[in-house]
Amino acid sequence: MRDFKKKVLEAHKKYKGKLEVISKVPLNTKQDMSFYYTPGVAEPCIKIAKNQDLAYQYTSKGHTIAVVTDGSAVLGLGNIGALAGLPVMEGKCVLFKKFGGVDAVPICINTQNVDEFVDCVKKMASSFGGINLEDISAPRCFEIEEKLIRNLDIPVFHDDQHGTAIVCLAGLINALKVVGKNKKNVKVVISGAGAAGIAISKLLLKYGFRNIILQDSRGLIYEGRGNLNEYKKKIAKVTNRKKIHGHLEDVIEGTDIFIGVSKPNILKKRMVKRMSKNPIIFAMSNPDPEIHPKDAKSAGAKIIATGRSDYPNQINNVLVFPGIFKGALEARFDHITDKMKISSAEALARLVKKPSANKIIPGVFEKGVSVAVANAVKNVFAQ
Amino acid sequence: MRDFKKKVLEAHKKYKGKLEVISKVPLNTKQDMSFYYTPGVAEPCIKIAKNQDLAYQYTSKGHTIAVVTDGSAVLGLGNIGALAGLPVMEGKCVLFKKFGGVDAVPICINTQNVDEFVDCVKKMASSFGGINLEDISAPRCFEIEEKLIRNLDIPVFHDDQHGTAIVCLAGLINALKVVGKNKKNVKVVISGAGAAGIAISKLLLKYGFRNIILQDSRGLIYEGRGNLNEYKKKIAKVTNRKKIHGHLEDVIEGTDIFIGVSKPNILKKRMVKRMSKNPIIFAMSNPDPEIHPKDAKSAGAKIIATGRSDYPNQINNVLVFPGIFKGALEARFDHITDKMKISSAEALARLVKKPSANKIIPGVFEKGVSVAVANAVKNVFAQ
Repeated sequence: MRDFKKKVLEAHKKYKGKLEVISKVPLNTKQDMSFYYTPGVAEPCIKIAKNQDLAYQYTSKGHTIAVVTDGSAVLGLGNIGALAGLPVMEGKCVLFKKFGGVDAVPICINTQNVDEFVDCVKKMASSFGGINLEDISAPRCFEIEEKLIRNLDIPVFHDDQHGTAIVCLAGLINALKVVGKNKKNVKVVISGAGAAGIAISKLLLKYGFRNIILQDSRGLIYEGRGNLNEYKKKIAKVTNRKKIHGHLEDVIEGTDIFIGVSKPNILKKRMVKRMSKNPIIFAMSNPDPEIHPKDAKSAGAKIIATGRSDYPNQINNVLVFPGIFKGALEARFDHITDKMKISSAEALARLVKKPSANKIIPGVFEKGVSVAVANAVKNVFAQ
Repeated sequence: MRDFKKKVLEAHKKYKGKLEVISKVPLNTKQDMSFYYTPGVAEPCIKIAKNQDLAYQYTSKGHTIAVVTDGSAVLGLGNIGALAGLPVMEGKCVLFKKFGGVDAVPICINTQNVDEFVDCVKKMASSFGGINLEDISAPRCFEIEEKLIRNLDIPVFHDDQHGTAIVCLAGLINALKVVGKNKKNVKVVISGAGAAGIAISKLLLKYGFRNIILQDSRGLIYEGRGNLNEYKKKIAKVTNRKKIHGHLEDVIEGTDIFIGVSKPNILKKRMVKRMSKNPIIFAMSNPDPEIHPKDAKSAGAKIIATGRSDYPNQINNVLVFPGIFKGALEARFDHITDKMKISSAEALARLVKKPSANKIIPGVFEKGVSVAVANAVKNVFAQ
């Protein structure tokens, strides 16, 4: 492990970061210069000044997004500040390009005041075709996303919420096929009520799941509980309808699906044994899951998914975010809707021709993933 | 001309802008993914959280700048707004890469309130190694640059001011050699007291020129005149010491050097005839100069420079800005000082081995320009 960390740092040092900004146009002659700089460049400026929409035609706006963070919840590292989040933002940007052909620029914003952050993003958004929010702590991330969506006419997407929710739903669609259960009847317990947990709950409800129970670090979430922020209060109204108090132990009996977006080792083998027949476990805490896959299996789990690449069924957002923006940019949508999210999850699930316990989701390097997701996004209005 | 404009627009449309953001690191295997994204990417984040300086080592910060505008003074088009300035910003970015190897990202900021603009740039600056301000109207540009320099620990450089001033000084150094005159004795008239005019005056004075007279659209600038903003008031204290009132006509007699950064056709042939022996004329209004080179020549000008590539002696900022940032980034300077500007101008002048009336400045495509400028910047503290 120490060797891995050392190698990672050496690689980052060798390349001096991960991004490069290059020219798509030739710049070898005086004529090139007069075309792409003065005096020629005045022409597209004049056109755009008259009709802002033409920025999509004459500039990189239509295929370029900003990957924006305030560094308040970077990976599992917590609030390490804007600049320290830059390696993740750069990583995200190269994945956008590699998997979706989307140009992405990292922007680290040095404030953790919601309105200041929103204001800054609003002011610098016009040259981008979309905004991918990243590693922003909950519940601030919800307010930031809502305000930006309301104020901007380009897609705004908080990947830690919706990317996770979409890929999770895709995996669940196939997992249910494998165990022969129906979304309307299964009992789902979600450990973690941050950005991912809340977004997963909302998307599953939207998709037709009916019985969901969340827990946060203080225990199960139920309507009327103390210490709930406004987003947890809202979700408490549509989950845990029996208003069960307590902790994981108190609801694990008969649970069909456990979804972990919380912290390592909180799901115990004894709990898995109390779940319903053919339990489905998505233990997505990174890099250490809520239960080790081997332990889950030995306790009787039928389907196990994690965030890790060294076990089957990796639930990785990279299956989603490049295609989401690829599709939204190509179609020039100004918002990412719930329909698009569900359509993407279904498309992702369909890519696995014969779902099985060890194969409920496409692999990261499988061909055609981002195109399938992009088409799913684009086709929502064509349906 | 109509054909030229059409071709320019078609070219911009064909390429959909001029920029592309690519990965410098391999992303072909699971190991690559674990190195450059999760879980590996946590390592450089942890290092930078402890020591912000390490962003230069582990991220693209040290070789990436932002090219920032508010669209208030784009080319000669005026206040066309942030987004309409994007084609110019993209053009600037590709020139930074092509000529200086500097990665540059265009950021169009949607406010023309000085403090709001400064605040937004301050907040998003941390992931960049420098800020190139572009196409911001005077006198706002002076205040914006001053405030950002005071508040940021990375180089901030308004190219319309200093890039123009440096390349202009470089040309003048060689022009004086050609006509055998001394900076201490020549009379200089500058038409235009915006970003470029003010910056040129300041740099020439710093370099040792003594007799400079500026004019703005209301006439000659002298100490005590009405209608002077605070920046013109300041420059009025060190120029036009005889406090001559009036217009160009009233000071052109015996002028050695005319510098135009104003508007087309304001220098007349009859005025050139009244200048001193071997007049030097830098008519840099773009694309139409203050006097047509043919007219200047027939009226007796010895040396004529313009902003145009189709005449000798093109005074083009691209000779300067890529090297300035290349040098400042490589040396990790936090400010661009006057010494660096003068050192760059001298280095640029020295690149012309045998200055002559038709060759006072290197051509845009000559090899070694940005390296020479970068070295001049870097060597300032080594001298």
